[in-house]
Amino acid sequence: MTDRLKQNLIETSAIGRLSKQTITAYDQLELEHGVTRPEGSAANKVLREYTIQKMQAAGLKIQIDRVGNIIGQKAGTDDRAKVIMIGSHLDSVVNGGHLDGTLGVLAGIEAVHRLDDEGFRHSHPIEVVAFTSEEGSCFEVGTMLGSAVLSGRMSAEEALSIRDNRGETLESVLKRIGFNGTFEHPRDNIKAFLEMHVEQGPVLDNEQIPIGIVESIAGITWLKATITGMENHAGTTPMHLRSDALVAAADAVTHLHKQACLMSRDRDTSIVGTTGYLKTHPNNINVIPGKVMLGFDIRDASLKNMQQLTADIKAYLGRLQDTYNVQVSIEPADVEAPIKLSEKIIGIIESSAIQTRTVYRKMPSGAGHDSMNMTAVADTGMIFVPSVNGISHSPLEWTRWEDIEKGVCVLTAVLKVLSKGAKRI
Amino acid sequence: MTDRLKQNLIETSAIGRLSKQTITAYDQLELEHGVTRPEGSAANKVLREYTIQKMQAAGLKIQIDRVGNIIGQKAGTDDRAKVIMIGSHLDSVVNGGHLDGTLGVLAGIEAVHRLDDEGFRHSHPIEVVAFTSEEGSCFEVGTMLGSAVLSGRMSAEEALSIRDNRGETLESVLKRIGFNGTFEHPRDNIKAFLEMHVEQGPVLDNEQIPIGIVESIAGITWLKATITGMENHAGTTPMHLRSDALVAAADAVTHLHKQACLMSRDRDTSIVGTTGYLKTHPNNINVIPGKVMLGFDIRDASLKNMQQLTADIKAYLGRLQDTYNVQVSIEPADVEAPIKLSEKIIGIIESSAIQTRTVYRKMPSGAGHDSMNMTAVADTGMIFVPSVNGISHSPLEWTRWEDIEKGVCVLTAVLKVLSKGAKRI
Repeated sequence: MTDRLKQNLIETSAIGRLSKQTITAYDQLELEHGVTRPEGSAANKVLREYTIQKMQAAGLKIQIDRVGNIIGQKAGTDDRAKVIMIGSHLDSVVNGGHLDGTLGVLAGIEAVHRLDDEGFRHSHPIEVVAFTSEEGSCFEVGTMLGSAVLSGRMSAEEALSIRDNRGETLESVLKRIGFNGTFEHPRDNIKAFLEMHVEQGPVLDNEQIPIGIVESIAGITWLKATITGMENHAGTTPMHLRSDALVAAADAVTHLHKQACLMSRDRDTSIVGTTGYLKTHPNNINVIPGKVMLGFDIRDASLKNMQQLTADIKAYLGRLQDTYNVQVSIEPADVEAPIKLSEKIIGIIESSAIQTRTVYRKMPSGAGHDSMNMTAVADTGMIFVPSVNGISHSPLEWTRWEDIEKGVCVLTAVLKVLSKGAKRI
Repeated sequence: MTDRLKQNLIETSAIGRLSKQTITAYDQLELEHGVTRPEGSAANKVLREYTIQKMQAAGLKIQIDRVGNIIGQKAGTDDRAKVIMIGSHLDSVVNGGHLDGTLGVLAGIEAVHRLDDEGFRHSHPIEVVAFTSEEGSCFEVGTMLGSAVLSGRMSAEEALSIRDNRGETLESVLKRIGFNGTFEHPRDNIKAFLEMHVEQGPVLDNEQIPIGIVESIAGITWLKATITGMENHAGTTPMHLRSDALVAAADAVTHLHKQACLMSRDRDTSIVGTTGYLKTHPNNINVIPGKVMLGFDIRDASLKNMQQLTADIKAYLGRLQDTYNVQVSIEPADVEAPIKLSEKIIGIIESSAIQTRTVYRKMPSGAGHDSMNMTAVADTGMIFVPSVNGISHSPLEWTRWEDIEKGVCVLTAVLKVLSKGAKRI
């Protein structure tokens, strides 16, 4: 791969990292600490300024919008043509990886460089975007805030009034780091949005495939339930006279896992079902648990599958009442429907992969991304590169240099197709 | 029942109770708050002083030993005969019931009164004892401290140096409430020990039997295990590539419950197996649990059964490693062997129940009691009275007045048999 992108990734990988690591020896094995760059942190500010510098070096003209999105613009030959936008986010979770988000922004800048290096003429304007607060790691109620505003799914006013975990508004946070801009991006002039991102899952690494073409972003259902039994002495309560909330909860955990395994195998879908949260009360070794709180996470690219698995676990929870002599209460489910990405862009990514002789597979994304919001205003496509061992949001997040290069090649090829436009002579 | 014991129980039920309740209207339904009388608390001191007063009213001579045990002595006609000891403890857990322990002490005093009322002549000395710190609710490492010292299973020095949850030694706690005595009870002159106690389980209430004759005190095995999987994104990790520590833990919880149910049915034993403790890490709804800590409680009156169920769950935990691609580590088990109570005393209690026309059943005790320690120095027997709905260590702890009366009748009859002794004219 070009030294340019590698150098940028090495340099930015030190920003917000607890231990100062020798960047010339930069390697996955030596990463003890992750990067911490929540929105408005000192590290986030440094990374934003670094990015602006690199955008300018690539000939991009900088705009900062009202929620701090950084937009680097490069005119095309047709000033009436719509924009081709490319990018991702710069904020990170606490103790996260250096690639989640940042790779998509720096890869976008690199693609612009490569078009220039080739003297490629594009009629459409190209914009590289660095979205504000995708992770929402400091803004409890807000993930993907920057893309939500740019796509018109949330007003700037609403986003700016959201408070972080210390009670400071996004508006104040952005003022503090000097990224409270005035630019308002016209929503109706974006033709396409492209995002390159690390997979954050093990599928590509497991199958040794360097490129994933994202077809859809999975829907998410969160279901919370409370099982109430009878708290009692573990020594004096015979087995047949118990109402053990944990035994009932264990049955539900097992059932969801089995059903999700069966459905994913039988229907060849990427459906997942997880009990991520389980809290036992009173949680004393010698007391029969009287109450257990459960949190289930169910996702699929198919709304129907997701609804079916959700209905199945709800019905099963209901039946536990008789089986274990317990009460079960279920909160209304928190549901986000799956989103399909643009068929047209999927087709262009596929042709570009074939043209650049890159092995690829089509796949859904199990995690949410800024691309979800951008589907509201533009044809949207995503390119995944492998996460070694499927690890993300961790100091161990890593993608091999050769896979990053393959991602950038395909990204550049797609950008060419999209930005070239009609010839006007 | 006699107004005397009822009055004593009503009066003491107000000691250490958060809400001041009208004792004349004293009834289970009105109990909102439990009693809190940990060793050395103001409530514990008040109850100790109340008990001494009642012992004196029954003609007992008071001794306080080095660990604060209160011993009320009444001479028999034969000053060379060994002591018949009867009693229980006065301390309670936090927000516990008014009967656990206290009933056994006050019933002992009542039995002495009844012997006097009848003009019953006994050759053996009779002693009513109120043991220090049976619950250990303030002394983490010490339960049944008073009986441990009186029976010689622990030295007074060791017991006095144990610190409570605020760091104060038992010695200092006893000094503060003025119960640091000097008496040393001779260990070799106790012929028999008798304890009346609430069952703290649902067996008698469920079968509507007023008296349980305890044959043995169940052994206890505590087993702690940690299951380590791989913490991962719930949305991006396919079902077949997971190492979900909670799914493995749920399987273990279910297995222990099923095995304990099967064994208790097939072998007609009162074996119990409980997962009282389960802690999930990181316990976020959208993260596959990477680590789960488990605590199992296994009890039976048969050492062999208990060992077998323990071995079974250990082997099962080992097999989980392959099934779920997780690591399991098991700490060395914490084992207390079951204890058999005296056949002789069991026989006397049985005859006394028949003689007083009281329905009874023989049964094991699932909980530990001071009687466990007393088996080391004396023929020991226990009489259970029913706990309504099996509830104890709770404000809802309750035993019907008529069942308490039946217990005291049997207790008094047993005391007569034991204390009468050889006639010397």
